[in-house]
Amino acid sequence: MNERRGFASDNHAGVHPEVMAAIAEANEGHAEAYGGDPWTARAQQRFREHFGSGAQAFPVFNGTGANVLCLEALTQPWQGIVCARTAHLNVDECGAPEAAGRKLLVVDTPDGRLTPEHVAPLLVRIGDEHVVQPRVISIAQSTELGTVYPPEAVAGLAEWAHAHGMLLHVDGARLCNAAAALGVPLRALTTDAGVDALSFGATKNGSMGAEAVVLLRDEIADGFRYRRKQAMQLASKMRFVSAQLDALLTGDLWQRSAAHANAMARRLADAVRGVEGVRITQPVDANAVFAILPPAVTERLERDWTFYVWDDNTGEVRWMCSWDTAPEDVDAFAADVKAAVLR
Amino acid sequence: MNERRGFASDNHAGVHPEVMAAIAEANEGHAEAYGGDPWTARAQQRFREHFGSGAQAFPVFNGTGANVLCLEALTQPWQGIVCARTAHLNVDECGAPEAAGRKLLVVDTPDGRLTPEHVAPLLVRIGDEHVVQPRVISIAQSTELGTVYPPEAVAGLAEWAHAHGMLLHVDGARLCNAAAALGVPLRALTTDAGVDALSFGATKNGSMGAEAVVLLRDEIADGFRYRRKQAMQLASKMRFVSAQLDALLTGDLWQRSAAHANAMARRLADAVRGVEGVRITQPVDANAVFAILPPAVTERLERDWTFYVWDDNTGEVRWMCSWDTAPEDVDAFAADVKAAVLR
Amino acid sequence: MNERRGFASDNHAGVHPEVMAAIAEANEGHAEAYGGDPWTARAQQRFREHFGSGAQAFPVFNGTGANVLCLEALTQPWQGIVCARTAHLNVDECGAPEAAGRKLLVVDTPDGRLTPEHVAPLLVRIGDEHVVQPRVISIAQSTELGTVYPPEAVAGLAEWAHAHGMLLHVDGARLCNAAAALGVPLRALTTDAGVDALSFGATKNGSMGAEAVVLLRDEIADGFRYRRKQAMQLASKMRFVSAQLDALLTGDLWQRSAAHANAMARRLADAVRGVEGVRITQPVDANAVFAILPPAVTERLERDWTFYVWDDNTGEVRWMCSWDTAPEDVDAFAADVKAAVLR
Amino acid sequence: MNERRGFASDNHAGVHPEVMAAIAEANEGHAEAYGGDPWTARAQQRFREHFGSGAQAFPVFNGTGANVLCLEALTQPWQGIVCARTAHLNVDECGAPEAAGRKLLVVDTPDGRLTPEHVAPLLVRIGDEHVVQPRVISIAQSTELGTVYPPEAVAGLAEWAHAHGMLLHVDGARLCNAAAALGVPLRALTTDAGVDALSFGATKNGSMGAEAVVLLRDEIADGFRYRRKQAMQLASKMRFVSAQLDALLTGDLWQRSAAHANAMARRLADAVRGVEGVRITQPVDANAVFAILPPAVTERLERDWTFYVWDDNTGEVRWMCSWDTAPEDVDAFAADVKAAVLR
Repeated sequence: MNERRGFASDNHAGVHPEVMAAIAEANEGHAEAYGGDPWTARAQQRFREHFGSGAQAFPVFNGTGANVLCLEALTQPWQGIVCARTAHLNVDECGAPEAAGRKLLVVDTPDGRLTPEHVAPLLVRIGDEHVVQPRVISIAQSTELGTVYPPEAVAGLAEWAHAHGMLLHVDGARLCNAAAALGVPLRALTTDAGVDALSFGATKNGSMGAEAVVLLRDEIADGFRYRRKQAMQLASKMRFVSAQLDALLTGDLWQRSAAHANAMARRLADAVRGVEGVRITQPVDANAVFAILPPAVTERLERDWTFYVWDDNTGEVRWMCSWDTAPEDVDAFAADVKAAVLR
Repeated sequence: MNERRGFASDNHAGVHPEVMAAIAEANEGHAEAYGGDPWTARAQQRFREHFGSGAQAFPVFNGTGANVLCLEALTQPWQGIVCARTAHLNVDECGAPEAAGRKLLVVDTPDGRLTPEHVAPLLVRIGDEHVVQPRVISIAQSTELGTVYPPEAVAGLAEWAHAHGMLLHVDGARLCNAAAALGVPLRALTTDAGVDALSFGATKNGSMGAEAVVLLRDEIADGFRYRRKQAMQLASKMRFVSAQLDALLTGDLWQRSAAHANAMARRLADAVRGVEGVRITQPVDANAVFAILPPAVTERLERDWTFYVWDDNTGEVRWMCSWDTAPEDVDAFAADVKAAVLR
Repeated sequence: MNERRGFASDNHAGVHPEVMAAIAEANEGHAEAYGGDPWTARAQQRFREHFGSGAQAFPVFNGTGANVLCLEALTQPWQGIVCARTAHLNVDECGAPEAAGRKLLVVDTPDGRLTPEHVAPLLVRIGDEHVVQPRVISIAQSTELGTVYPPEAVAGLAEWAHAHGMLLHVDGARLCNAAAALGVPLRALTTDAGVDALSFGATKNGSMGAEAVVLLRDEIADGFRYRRKQAMQLASKMRFVSAQLDALLTGDLWQRSAAHANAMARRLADAVRGVEGVRITQPVDANAVFAILPPAVTERLERDWTFYVWDDNTGEVRWMCSWDTAPEDVDAFAADVKAAVLR
Repeated sequence: MNERRGFASDNHAGVHPEVMAAIAEANEGHAEAYGGDPWTARAQQRFREHFGSGAQAFPVFNGTGANVLCLEALTQPWQGIVCARTAHLNVDECGAPEAAGRKLLVVDTPDGRLTPEHVAPLLVRIGDEHVVQPRVISIAQSTELGTVYPPEAVAGLAEWAHAHGMLLHVDGARLCNAAAALGVPLRALTTDAGVDALSFGATKNGSMGAEAVVLLRDEIADGFRYRRKQAMQLASKMRFVSAQLDALLTGDLWQRSAAHANAMARRLADAVRGVEGVRITQPVDANAVFAILPPAVTERLERDWTFYVWDDNTGEVRWMCSWDTAPEDVDAFAADVKAAVLR
């Protein structure tokens, strides 16, 4: 393994020691399978604490599962989901939403964020049986471009959605990063803003493999247990998934880890912002830095560091920080960026 | 938690210390996500060692995922899968095979085991477009009734299947138990017997949550990577799944754990076999004991112990042993069975 | 073409002259596509006359479409449909219900008819997320074995279904034959008996290609229009489908044609009943005769006549009459049966 | 019914007398169901005459069925279909492609036509399991905007597709109009241009309800019969569908009807082209005229005539001509356009 940590993905990071300890503690004797265990009950209680007493949380294995299950629960097969062209849902799930029989209605946005103005033009031919009927707006928080929706933007979207017979879903693979960036509790960006359903991400924020579907309206939850099983997302020894969620949501671990990752991204952005030939392309709201570099610089950097080229045409790259990114990693990388530019 | 371990399910058991150690060891620095890590490479090597150099292993989250993905890879949408009525596939997956668009062709068997004689009557109307065409025979090893197919039975089924244009799938959620019971290597029951694809189970045998699709013919593997992703079974931090598989298949852990569970089931069967009113209904080949008890006896036992009533009509119960069942658990339970009968 | 009509299927018959005339009359000028035409409005009115003012009829192309759409509308993906093993749904739709993600729960019946006693044993593990939850009983009227449910049997099933949280669907591909056989109006076997949804068949009863989904409860119809379009069952020039349904349901054409087919089956059954070696195996309630013949007799008959061997193992054959079967066809065939036996 | 024919859709037209006669002629005695009849054999022969001896034609009910079945046959579930944003597939099928589990990859085009330049940017991340892999280019001929691809454009797309591991599908709902417009045989735009699969439309060109999947490569046809049945597109009394296809493709009926519709569209375009405030927005290659009118003019016209407003934002309308549009219809309508403008 590299001694230094790369900037490819927060999925490349390992498991936070406190999460690992929670997993080890859960390994005690027998416990009922499929969620009838005390750790799952505790995790569900934590979700109610963070998202309100009406929040129903269902642990699942991964983000694809959380997203697709949310969208299935929120729609009939003939109802569509509006999302940004850059949405993970649209570009990185290998068509899992469509494999589940749902159509994505894709709109272009400059920074990964949707507004009512993006969605409104799609509300045509309502009631026409030839046309998939828009039903859900799905936003990512933070977005795939590292930007964040402030609470009032989420609330605005939710209000607009509800006024137009639609629902609001949040792909919260990095919800903790967004909340930490804004210094608000998790519910400020979800329950309190009128969100209807949420994919809650723990994996990228220091867990081993744990996500949750969080349903914020009772009627959506109807029959959801069957859906999760049928979609192959029901863990048998669920206690080990739930223990991760419980650990993250107990105390301030979720906030601490995410805030650290965010801070590392800002440190990196600050360090390279003035460098000639390096242009930062998106607001560094959360734990990602997007930048355009000369191709030769990218090539030199790739010899020693891992990161993704986001757009082959423009030369845009993505540098992602995680809970375990060290200041020294950032400083060494920034120094290498400068050196690569100067060469 | 109970101090004593119950007999409800091998899914109620925790994680074997050696597996837990392997998980902890995998938590070191950054590693490529989605399977591009050394632990996954090592696990795949282990599968080749056990199942032959042509075996392609794909770690997944759970048994439902492994089974459904195998069956999808082996069939076109209009091809059917023959299985026992008691098959997990048929009764315990909440219709996941059908949700994936596949039809199960169900046959009755007294002990959960299929023979060519069960399948042959289904081979009618071949080539008739109105009829789902039988394509796969799916057997469970060990079966849901705790019975085991010896290598020659598997080989006979594979040979018959291939002679009739069909393929053989093994739901190996408890393959280790079957192999341990027979004292044969894993490949004797799979690769060497002509099996085409395998769901390999680790979770019930002391893992935290790790299964694998093992494809034993190249052409089946074509495009399988996409299938796994689309079916929401691709782990991001896969190293922690693969480390479990690697630990189980390195040295004799798979065999040791399974053999112990089997021995505990035999110990239990031996202890209660003579008890009046208790009738053992299936051969105790692996780690399960099936028995019919008077309802009053069952009720008394349920006050202190966990186990499943298998058939409400007959009063048949299932007692399942696991890698961590202690002889003292068995002896105490057997004593309580006797006491409950005498009352 | 044969001058004589065979006994293979009521699908082999052509179009009744009155239906053909109705189609020709509908071919006048322009009419709105996709059902916004007067013929469709008239057909829907006819359905309300026959099935009650709450009946909502949706013309579709074929029986598979009608059946699958009914079942989808009646169930969530994790809810199962109980049907006879011999049901068309189960054996002749090439897995279309499963392709739509629904699981059939198949039970054995001697004569194709279901009773509550067949269904009751399936009502186990209610509320258990691992198990497809039985939600619909689907019966065929007349059955695939030519038998008929009297109104009180349908009502009994409906009442039982509703008392157990289930719904009743009728595959009415030959509903007209059943009603004609019993001398009752169509609603006696459906609306008045408590049926929830119906696949109404016109094609086999003298139409060219026209079936309808008839929904008898408002809430089932919610969104159904989208479902029909998405399932590729929405006709563009729908007036030509609707004109067939209108013709059949105006006056007594539905009854006249079906009664004639039924009478021909009885005539055939009566003619061969005493013949040595010929055993009629099912009550001849509607337009089908099932009989077991010596294989040599079947072979001789097949030289001059078309019909299906129903069961290769027993030698059972099916002789199906249709709206255009002539008494002379029956008499000639019966004479050939006798001759073939004597040879 | 209106005495005058409107301009809403070629689906509003009735059935051509020659097609109606062919249907009536097919109504003679018994014929094997599900395609084993002489009319189907004859229609398939016609398709071979028009599309080459390797063409395999499968009659289906409607265009949605033809399109979705083609796309399913051409792709694995994780492979995507590139189409224009305006494609019928994308906007008018109520998500039927997605309901079949396939993802559309949508690109913007000014006139409904795709070129390799539109598709090339989508060929990124090939081999990356997170991304739906582009596999098919689907073009409409004529397009939904009334434009036509000349043979060399189709051949260019096919060549490019094949060079990049892709296949070319033609949604030929109005293929006859395109071929008639160009004065070329049907195969010039399909088989000879390298097309792999085709949805052949007859309904809009004077049929009652008849389309066909035409597969131009053997390997695509493998198992297709089962697919058609499972997708509920197999007609029982298929002879009446096939007779329509046979009639259209025998002699020059396909050409005559389509050429007439095209001529009527040109007549209309010519008549209104100079009218103040009326701007024709697309080349009038086939049987559609697209124009932008002042909203008040549109409103006045809608009192007496049927046609579609294509784009509420721009005021663009679509005027569609059909096989039965009379010159007098066109002249009266054009006169009303002028009158409405002057008011």
